[in-house]
Amino acid sequence: MTPPLRSALDFLLHDWLHAESLTARERFADHSRETFDAVLDTCERIAREKYAPFNRTVDTEEPRFDGERVILPQCTHDARQAYAESGMLSAAQDYELGGMQLPYVVESAANAFFGVASISISSSLLTTGNANAILAHGTALQQQVFAANEFNGRWTGTMCLSEPQAGSSLSDIATRAVSDGEDFERDPLGPRYRLQGNKMWISAGEHEMTENIVHLVLAKIPGPDGRLVPGVKGISLFIVPKHLVDTEGRLTGERNDVALAGLNHKLGWRGTTNTLLNFGEGRYPVRGSAGAIGYRVGQPGEGLKCMFHMMNEARIAIGMAATMLGLAGYYASLDYAKTRLQGRPIGAGGKDTTQPQVPLIEHADVKRMLLAQKSYCEGALALNLYCARLVDEVRTGEPQAAAEARLLLEVLTPIAKSWPSENCLEANSLAIQIHGGYGYTRDFPVEQYWRDNRLNMIHEGTHGIQAMDLLGRKVVMQGGAGLALLARAMGRTLDEARGHAQLAGWADQLAQALQDVEATTRAAWATGDAQQALANAVPYLQAFGHMVLAWTWLDVALAVLRSDTTLSIAASQGRMGAARYFYHYELPRIGAWLAVVARRDMTCADMSASMF
Amino acid sequence: MTPPLRSALDFLLHDWLHAESLTARERFADHSRETFDAVLDTCERIAREKYAPFNRTVDTEEPRFDGERVILPQCTHDARQAYAESGMLSAAQDYELGGMQLPYVVESAANAFFGVASISISSSLLTTGNANAILAHGTALQQQVFAANEFNGRWTGTMCLSEPQAGSSLSDIATRAVSDGEDFERDPLGPRYRLQGNKMWISAGEHEMTENIVHLVLAKIPGPDGRLVPGVKGISLFIVPKHLVDTEGRLTGERNDVALAGLNHKLGWRGTTNTLLNFGEGRYPVRGSAGAIGYRVGQPGEGLKCMFHMMNEARIAIGMAATMLGLAGYYASLDYAKTRLQGRPIGAGGKDTTQPQVPLIEHADVKRMLLAQKSYCEGALALNLYCARLVDEVRTGEPQAAAEARLLLEVLTPIAKSWPSENCLEANSLAIQIHGGYGYTRDFPVEQYWRDNRLNMIHEGTHGIQAMDLLGRKVVMQGGAGLALLARAMGRTLDEARGHAQLAGWADQLAQALQDVEATTRAAWATGDAQQALANAVPYLQAFGHMVLAWTWLDVALAVLRSDTTLSIAASQGRMGAARYFYHYELPRIGAWLAVVARRDMTCADMSASMF
Repeated sequence: MTPPLRSALDFLLHDWLHAESLTARERFADHSRETFDAVLDTCERIAREKYAPFNRTVDTEEPRFDGERVILPQCTHDARQAYAESGMLSAAQDYELGGMQLPYVVESAANAFFGVASISISSSLLTTGNANAILAHGTALQQQVFAANEFNGRWTGTMCLSEPQAGSSLSDIATRAVSDGEDFERDPLGPRYRLQGNKMWISAGEHEMTENIVHLVLAKIPGPDGRLVPGVKGISLFIVPKHLVDTEGRLTGERNDVALAGLNHKLGWRGTTNTLLNFGEGRYPVRGSAGAIGYRVGQPGEGLKCMFHMMNEARIAIGMAATMLGLAGYYASLDYAKTRLQGRPIGAGGKDTTQPQVPLIEHADVKRMLLAQKSYCEGALALNLYCARLVDEVRTGEPQAAAEARLLLEVLTPIAKSWPSENCLEANSLAIQIHGGYGYTRDFPVEQYWRDNRLNMIHEGTHGIQAMDLLGRKVVMQGGAGLALLARAMGRTLDEARGHAQLAGWADQLAQALQDVEATTRAAWATGDAQQALANAVPYLQAFGHMVLAWTWLDVALAVLRSDTTLSIAASQGRMGAARYFYHYELPRIGAWLAVVARRDMTCADMSASMF
Repeated sequence: MTPPLRSALDFLLHDWLHAESLTARERFADHSRETFDAVLDTCERIAREKYAPFNRTVDTEEPRFDGERVILPQCTHDARQAYAESGMLSAAQDYELGGMQLPYVVESAANAFFGVASISISSSLLTTGNANAILAHGTALQQQVFAANEFNGRWTGTMCLSEPQAGSSLSDIATRAVSDGEDFERDPLGPRYRLQGNKMWISAGEHEMTENIVHLVLAKIPGPDGRLVPGVKGISLFIVPKHLVDTEGRLTGERNDVALAGLNHKLGWRGTTNTLLNFGEGRYPVRGSAGAIGYRVGQPGEGLKCMFHMMNEARIAIGMAATMLGLAGYYASLDYAKTRLQGRPIGAGGKDTTQPQVPLIEHADVKRMLLAQKSYCEGALALNLYCARLVDEVRTGEPQAAAEARLLLEVLTPIAKSWPSENCLEANSLAIQIHGGYGYTRDFPVEQYWRDNRLNMIHEGTHGIQAMDLLGRKVVMQGGAGLALLARAMGRTLDEARGHAQLAGWADQLAQALQDVEATTRAAWATGDAQQALANAVPYLQAFGHMVLAWTWLDVALAVLRSDTTLSIAASQGRMGAARYFYHYELPRIGAWLAVVARRDMTCADMSASMF
C-alpha cells in the first residue's frame, strides 16, 4: 500500500496540478513523470532512514555549547550529509550549477517527506534561500564562491536579520558596517566592510557540521556624519563568512570575528540550533582592525529588497513546515485510532458492555477530530503546492502568465504562511486529544509535533505581520489588482463547480464568501484611516485564509470528480469528505471574523494600558 | 497597588457574588469579610514565597524513580508542607474535623493563588476530593482514620479509576476485589478485600512526601461464578492504603501490596507525579495471601456513584486550574507588553523611524491579544466562582434553593470544566505570541503555562466526554428541567440588563443566542436517534459554553455598573472592554457551531476508517 503522504502528493501533483505538463517547457524538457517519481522515491527513502528514526533524539539531545564548539547528536550530521549527497540542496538550480532543473513544485513535494519525518533536522531551507539571494543579487564571483558551495553542501548558510532590541522591527537594527580601508571597493569578493553588532534568532548560526558558515547579514552603513540612517532605507546586505576564504573558495585559515553569544533553549524545533551571534566584538580579531569582515551584496540601502527575495520563498517553506507537522500528527493519530480499543459506539447495543471494545475510530467525535485534521492539513498541502506551482510560473511562464502568477503569489503568500501555522497547530492539538492521556506523554510523538509547530506563527514574520501585509498592502496595492486577480481565478473554479450538482451548493457558499471578503475589504478602508482599517487585521487574515482554503478544496474536489475512475473509491470519498467538512464546519466561521473588520471595530484598539 | 489577581478576586467575590452575605448563614456565622480577606492574604503569601519561585524548577527537575523511591525536588516538599500547615486542606470542613467552615467559593478563590503561582506543585485537589468522598460514603471509623488524616496533612490521597486498557471507558476496568477470608466483613476499618489489577494515570500515586498514601480504588467484586460483572454496575469503591494502619491511624509496619510500575513522562504539569500502579502483583506480599488489602466504602456495586461525588468538584477544580494557567500567561504577557519596546504605531508618524520605539502594548493587535486573554480568563474565573457559589448553595441553602442550585450545577459543570480548558489554553498561545521569539524560549514562563494547560482538556473527563454529558444527559434530563432553569437564571440577567442603555444590545444578542441554543437542542434530538443527536456534541459544547460565558460577562457588567462609583475607573473600563470583546468577537462564533448540530450533520460520522 502506498504510504498516505505519497498518495496525497501524487494526487495533488498530478491529478490536480498536472505537474508533468511542465516538462513541455524548455527548462524542464529532460524531465518526465518518471524523473519526478525518482526524486520523490529518493527523498522518501532518505527521510525514512535518516530522519524519522531520530526525531525524538534531536528533541531530547538539544544542541549544547561546550565553550568551544556546538555539539549536535550524530544523527543530525548523518541526516544533513545524506540530504546534501542527494543533490536536493540545488534541485531547482541550473545544470551548470550542479542542479537538476527540477520544477519548484516537485522540489517542494519531495522536501515534504523530510518535514513529516523530522522538521527540525530538516531545516535546510535557509541554506537554499541564502544561496538563492546571492544568485539573484550577488556578483559572479560571489555566486561562484559562496552560493555554489552552499548548493553543493560544502557550507551552510544563515539569515541574520533580527537583533535583540529589534525583532519584527527591522528598521531599528543597529548593526553597523563601515568600509574597510581605502581599497574596500576593490576586493574581488565584493566591497569589503567591517561589521559590528548583535544578531538574534539565528538558526544554524554556529555548528561543526560544515567547514564554513555563510552568514547573510543586514546592517547599516553610517552616513558621513557617522550616524545610522533611520528606517529600512539605510539597510544593506553583507556576506560574512565564519572563516575567511579566497577567490577559489579555499579557507585562508583566518577565523572571522563572528562569535556565538548564546544558544536559545526552545519549546520545540530543537534539532535546529538557534543562536545569538556577536559580530565584531573582538573575540576573534582579524586582519588587524576591529569588526567582522563582510562583503556587500547589491547596492547600499537595498539590503531589505535583496533579502525579501528569499523571504517570500521562506514563507511558503514555513507554511509547508507547519503543514508537514500537521500531517505527521494526523498520520500518528489515525494509526492510533485504528488500533486502540476503547469504549463502544453510541446507540443500539452501545451500552452492552459484554461486547468487546471497539477501535477509537468507530466513535463519531474521533472521526470528527480526524476529518478536521485531514481537512486542515491536506488543504494546506494543496495550497502550498499551488503556490509552489505559481513560483514555477513566475520563473518559466509566458510573460503575461508570469506577471499574473507573481501578483497572485504576492496575495497568497501571507495565507500560505499563516494559515497552516495556525490551523495545522490546531490539528496537532486534535492529534493529542485523540490519544487521550497517552498523547500527553513523551512516549508518543504527537506532543512534540505540537511543540514544534508553535514556532511557525512566530518566525519569518509573525501572524500580526502577515495580517498587516495582507490587508495593509497586498489587497490594496495597484488599486486592488491582486484581489481582483484572485477573484478571477476563483471565478474559474466557481464556474466549473456550478456544472456539478454535487458541488453547486459549495460554489454558492464560496461565491458569497468572496463577496463578503471583497465588501469587507472596502469597508475596512472606507475611511482611509489605516488605524481603523488595520485594527482587526488578524481576524481579516483568518477569514481570508478560510476563503482561500475553501476555494482550494473546491478546486481539489473538481479534480476528484475528474479523476474519479482512476482513483481508489475510498480515497476519493475521503477527499470529498474533507472538502465537505470544510464547507460545513469551517467556512461558516468567516462571518464572525469579517464582522469586526467591516465595522472597523475599535474595541481592542481603544483600550489603554491601564485598563488591562 | 493591589496585584491583578487579588483585584479580580475581590471584585468577583464581593462586588459581584456578595460572598459576605453567606455569613448570615449559621455554618458561616463566625466569618466576615475580614476572615475571608485573611485567608486570601495567607494563601497569596504562601503562593508567592513557596510556589511561584519554583514553578520552573518542578518543570526541569521531573519526578524520577531511583528503584526504591520517587525523588522530588525539595521545593515540592516545602510547598506541600506550607500548604498543609495553612489549614487549607480542610478549609471547608466542620470545626470538629479541624476545618474552618469556610464557604467553598472563598476556598476556591484562595486556592487560585497557588494555581497561578505553580499549578503542578499545587495539586492538592485529589487529597481533598478523596477525603470528601470518604466523608460522604465511608463509615465513621473510615472518616476518622482516613479522611481526617488527609485533611490534617499527615497523609495524601489518590483517585484510582483508569486502567491501561480502559481510559475513559470505566465499565471496562478489570481490577478484581475478592473478600479476604471468612471474617472479611468484621474488620473495623470496613469490609476487607484483596485487590489485584493495574491502575493508570494515577496522580501522586507514589512519593515520600507523607508517611502514607490513601488510594481510593475502583474495582469489581466477582460474582459467585468468579466472573466480573460487565458494565459500571459491577464497580465498587475501596480504600487501599500504601501502608496498613490500625484503628487509631497508626502505621502497623506492614507495607501493602501497592507497587509503582512506572512514572509517566509528560508534556507538562511535571510537578505532580503521575504513575502506573500495580495492586496485588506480589511485590510486597502482605499477611500471607495474594492481593493488596482494601476496605470497601459504601455498598457493593455503588463505587462509581460514590466516586462521582468527588468528580463534580474535581471538574470545577480543573476548570479553575485551566483558568489560573490562563491568567498566569495573561499577567506575564501584559507585563512584557508594557515593558518591551518594539516598533511604532500605525498611522500618523508611525513610519517616522527617528522616533523611539514604543511599548508593545501600543499596537492594536497586541491589545487584541491581551483583551482576548482577559475576556477568556477573567470570564472563566467568574464562571468557576459562580459554580463554587452554587456548591455553597447546595450545602447551606434553603431546600428549594439548594435543589435548584444542584440542578443548575449539573448543567454548568461540563462547561466549567471544558470551556476554560479550551479557551484559556488559547489564551496561553496568545501570551506566547505577544512575546514573539522570546515566548518560544524556556527563558520566559509562557511556554510552560501552555504545555501545562494542554492536560486540562484530557483529564477528569475529556472534552468529548463533557460534550456527551451535556448534550446526551444534562440538557435533556428531567424533561429538560436543567436547561429551563438555566434559561430562567439568564432571563433575570437579561431583564436587568435591558434597563441599561449600555447593555441592552448585548442582552438582545444573548437572548437570541439562548433561543438558538434551545432550538438547536430540540433539533438535535428531533429524530430521537442518539447517534444523530450526539454526532456533533463537541461543537454543541463549544456553542453552549460561549453562551454561558456571554451570560457571565453580562452579569459581571451589571455588577460593574452597580459598583462603578467605588471602583477604579480604569478597572471598570477594562471589565467593560472585556465584556464588549466577548460580545463583538466571540459570541458571534456560535452560529457556525450550532448549525451542524441543528441539522444533525453526519459528515464526520459517516466516514469509514478506509476513507481517512
